[in-house]
Amino acid sequence: MHTPITHQTTLTSVKENIHLDEWSASHTDLPLDTDAQWSIKKHTLHGGKQEGVDMIELDNGAMRITIIPTRGMSIYDVSYGGLRLGWNSPVKEIVHPQFIDMEDNGGLGWLEGFNEWMTRCGVEFAGHPGEDNGRLLTLHGKIGNIPTSEVQVVIDKEPPHRIRIRGKVHEVFFNGPNLELWTEVSTVPGSNSFRIDDVLTNKGKLEQEFMIIYHANFGPPLLEQGSKLLGTIEKLQPFDAHAASEVQRWDTYHQAKDGFAEQVYCIYPSADSDGNAHFLLHNASADQAVSFTYPKEQLPYLTQWKNENTGGYVTGLEPGTGFPHNRSIERKYGRVPVLKPGASRSFGLEYTIHKDKEEVKAAANAIQNLMQQPPQVIAEVIGK
Amino acid sequence: MHTPITHQTTLTSVKENIHLDEWSASHTDLPLDTDAQWSIKKHTLHGGKQEGVDMIELDNGAMRITIIPTRGMSIYDVSYGGLRLGWNSPVKEIVHPQFIDMEDNGGLGWLEGFNEWMTRCGVEFAGHPGEDNGRLLTLHGKIGNIPTSEVQVVIDKEPPHRIRIRGKVHEVFFNGPNLELWTEVSTVPGSNSFRIDDVLTNKGKLEQEFMIIYHANFGPPLLEQGSKLLGTIEKLQPFDAHAASEVQRWDTYHQAKDGFAEQVYCIYPSADSDGNAHFLLHNASADQAVSFTYPKEQLPYLTQWKNENTGGYVTGLEPGTGFPHNRSIERKYGRVPVLKPGASRSFGLEYTIHKDKEEVKAAANAIQNLMQQPPQVIAEVIGK
Amino acid sequence: MHTPITHQTTLTSVKENIHLDEWSASHTDLPLDTDAQWSIKKHTLHGGKQEGVDMIELDNGAMRITIIPTRGMSIYDVSYGGLRLGWNSPVKEIVHPQFIDMEDNGGLGWLEGFNEWMTRCGVEFAGHPGEDNGRLLTLHGKIGNIPTSEVQVVIDKEPPHRIRIRGKVHEVFFNGPNLELWTEVSTVPGSNSFRIDDVLTNKGKLEQEFMIIYHANFGPPLLEQGSKLLGTIEKLQPFDAHAASEVQRWDTYHQAKDGFAEQVYCIYPSADSDGNAHFLLHNASADQAVSFTYPKEQLPYLTQWKNENTGGYVTGLEPGTGFPHNRSIERKYGRVPVLKPGASRSFGLEYTIHKDKEEVKAAANAIQNLMQQPPQVIAEVIGK
Repeated sequence: MHTPITHQTTLTSVKENIHLDEWSASHTDLPLDTDAQWSIKKHTLHGGKQEGVDMIELDNGAMRITIIPTRGMSIYDVSYGGLRLGWNSPVKEIVHPQFIDMEDNGGLGWLEGFNEWMTRCGVEFAGHPGEDNGRLLTLHGKIGNIPTSEVQVVIDKEPPHRIRIRGKVHEVFFNGPNLELWTEVSTVPGSNSFRIDDVLTNKGKLEQEFMIIYHANFGPPLLEQGSKLLGTIEKLQPFDAHAASEVQRWDTYHQAKDGFAEQVYCIYPSADSDGNAHFLLHNASADQAVSFTYPKEQLPYLTQWKNENTGGYVTGLEPGTGFPHNRSIERKYGRVPVLKPGASRSFGLEYTIHKDKEEVKAAANAIQNLMQQPPQVIAEVIGK
Repeated sequence: MHTPITHQTTLTSVKENIHLDEWSASHTDLPLDTDAQWSIKKHTLHGGKQEGVDMIELDNGAMRITIIPTRGMSIYDVSYGGLRLGWNSPVKEIVHPQFIDMEDNGGLGWLEGFNEWMTRCGVEFAGHPGEDNGRLLTLHGKIGNIPTSEVQVVIDKEPPHRIRIRGKVHEVFFNGPNLELWTEVSTVPGSNSFRIDDVLTNKGKLEQEFMIIYHANFGPPLLEQGSKLLGTIEKLQPFDAHAASEVQRWDTYHQAKDGFAEQVYCIYPSADSDGNAHFLLHNASADQAVSFTYPKEQLPYLTQWKNENTGGYVTGLEPGTGFPHNRSIERKYGRVPVLKPGASRSFGLEYTIHKDKEEVKAAANAIQNLMQQPPQVIAEVIGK
Repeated sequence: MHTPITHQTTLTSVKENIHLDEWSASHTDLPLDTDAQWSIKKHTLHGGKQEGVDMIELDNGAMRITIIPTRGMSIYDVSYGGLRLGWNSPVKEIVHPQFIDMEDNGGLGWLEGFNEWMTRCGVEFAGHPGEDNGRLLTLHGKIGNIPTSEVQVVIDKEPPHRIRIRGKVHEVFFNGPNLELWTEVSTVPGSNSFRIDDVLTNKGKLEQEFMIIYHANFGPPLLEQGSKLLGTIEKLQPFDAHAASEVQRWDTYHQAKDGFAEQVYCIYPSADSDGNAHFLLHNASADQAVSFTYPKEQLPYLTQWKNENTGGYVTGLEPGTGFPHNRSIERKYGRVPVLKPGASRSFGLEYTIHKDKEEVKAAANAIQNLMQQPPQVIAEVIGK
């Protein structure tokens, strides 16, 4: 079946019983008021644990974004002008959820599929495995391993013709949460930035706790000896004793070392006058960077995960509704929000890739100018 | 491959290595001595957690029955003259077993796929999760999440040409149970009734315990404020304190209320002179009803599950070999039967849909006439 | 897509995004310097729990070997001149890993798919379920339920034109082991023997423990009342009290008895002057046998599993890097080897089928001649 592209095209649908294995469209199929040679391709992966996994490649003519409908609309990687957002996980295949057993290894089964640039943690719960009211919560929840129910390509009719890949991911069980997450990844043809715009709705009849963490992960070339993180930060605090031991170098990175244990910092962002938090990660020579911004109120906390070892050299910069403790701890500290029946919460993040020294400098300066004083660095480990 | 219908047609077979994704046949393909415009369709579901799920629609010309081979031949719903047997679970997709982790949430993972009109619980064990001799038994067992090994359409050569959808579901592991369940759903063209006829065989070499509960679930429109249950009942007893608190209204239903906890009653049916138990559920105005009957000896207990809340307004009327306690409790009270090697047990239930007041009245009267005295209502909670 | 056979043909590949559902080739497609009418077929299984399972049949013209890429390149069975290596498990379907929950039943979920002639146990851990440093290790590890990432047919260009089915199975998770197992099953056209040649590599950055047991299982007709095991054995010791109670008849088999519990013996092989251990299992009349040989240093231990009951009459003869205790016990006794980062270990086993009395006698004599004294039979149960 050939499905021609329109301004709204369905690639997968439970409602319409549609699932396109292979599909593609480009600027020649749907003329837009842009010179960018954009294209969208959907294909299916084969072999090993990735047999049957859907992938979507959204190329805006300058930036390519790969999205995984089979894994809750996670973003595998992003490339712009030779710079790749992503990392080199030892997990090489894009693992079908059928091969993930969340309960494995004391609730760490999520780690068998962890290799994306960005995966959402949540949404009934996120964070470390452990008991909460007698129930084992598994690492980082289910949403990143739920296959997407509705997948759509939506292209704005008006310039600048933003291209949106939308997906509905439904986390539900009987007598449990009924949380519907509409995800969207979008970009304007030819641009060096993209957005994530999600809406989480409690479709249930009772109040429902939720947690969401945008687990975005950056490896080389952005991450290297001398890379640095900037941000509008009010204060930060180490997650454990090992992180506390080097809290003063929280914003810098060293090279990957065999067996060097992860260090995690709990960051309380501040916001500009529009309420937006801003962060930027640049490489050692400050000529390549990614910056991102989002309304602080939507995601009041950010976890900085420094994994400076050779088992997967990566830093997670993870805006969230809380920190990655088990929900039992997050609840104790008031970081587990609640949705009333029918209520929604929106989350919107914009990422921009900077490819030359001037551009990096300008973006870094903009953040510096928002900081009246340096972040308050708290030496003690955060409460548990 | 086009497979023409005959009086016995194979849709899926491990033995013959057959799996038809799409298939259909109707009264025009196989002339029968009936005016009913019957048809049978098999198709595959797509999107989300239902990707790859097989469905069979059996339409007898007046009644449509949907059967899910991928989920142990569960019956998704039944429609007759605008009346639907089924319910509105918050779980909307027909979930492929590959996405069910029975051990999730302390053994409640079964609830991620629970939305059928009728799913069988069992057959090694059924009932609530919990430890039995040091082993965690998960909620309601495995049989409803085992894909069917052999699926056949069998049509009687002689009038009234009953149409049968047969499926073999095999629950087995090495050094464990080896239980083969041949299921059958059947209906006569044009009729307002259908039958379930199952045979469970111990294919193992040792005696084997088993449990089976026919978890049939009724939501609106049959279920509403004022709906009522009738039955040939000797006595009944509440499952817990909450059920005990309202035991006197066991047979009536109120409207769905947010957060109203389920109430469960353990019913000991009586039988007519042929040994058959009879039940009937009618709506408030008693002009729509379902009735069902089965040999009491086959399924000596019936669980009435009243879930009068908005999270899934439904009542389960569940004939079984026992009640839905954990097997450790059911064994203690002598409600876990045993099959000798090679031995079989048969289960046969007939359901009829009644669509007008006179018909409902006649069916209700027939049950009333079988009752010499009202059911004995025991106020105390059943032993555990 | 028709993929013609060459001396190296890819059937499945994550790297190249290839997965051939149906494929075949034979001696007429690729002329070799042999009269043997060899063929190779790949097909897909359907129905029940085997929906979507890949199978490869390698027929060397005299011997047929069936390999299961979907289940970690396990070997389902081997047939030569009417003699079958394999057994009659109560598990009849070749189960797709999507339907296996390793954590089920206290870590015994592996048993839901256990029916192959040979499945590898390992490779992070093998052996009995139980806690090791607070983590539940499930029975026999993951490698036998991991779908293969790369599957190749490789045919030697030079006579005798050995035909090799190669598969890469990757057991990995983030912050965990990163173990790549390249498996190979091979045979020379027309011959009565085949080889297994595997290479296990630690792709991780840290030292990594591993365990591997070649769980090869023999049922009738080789196994019957009066079958006998011979081997180059230094000593052996019972695994538990039940095995100890009949330790003196360790090398003989009786008929299957209902409910007769398994008996396991821990064997310490000796080697010939080339370092090879040798074993032979023959039937009662000693006119049918299988023999196998391998470098003792590669697999210093052999587990003899005698399961002389009707639930699956079978004996496992299982060369391994250790015995099948939980890893916590095996480590204590120094039987859990370690691979340095980047390091590899090779395992090579050759199996030969003997079909007449003279041949069996010659093979048995060869083993007897290597034994200067009978095996030392230790009566006490092995340490735990």
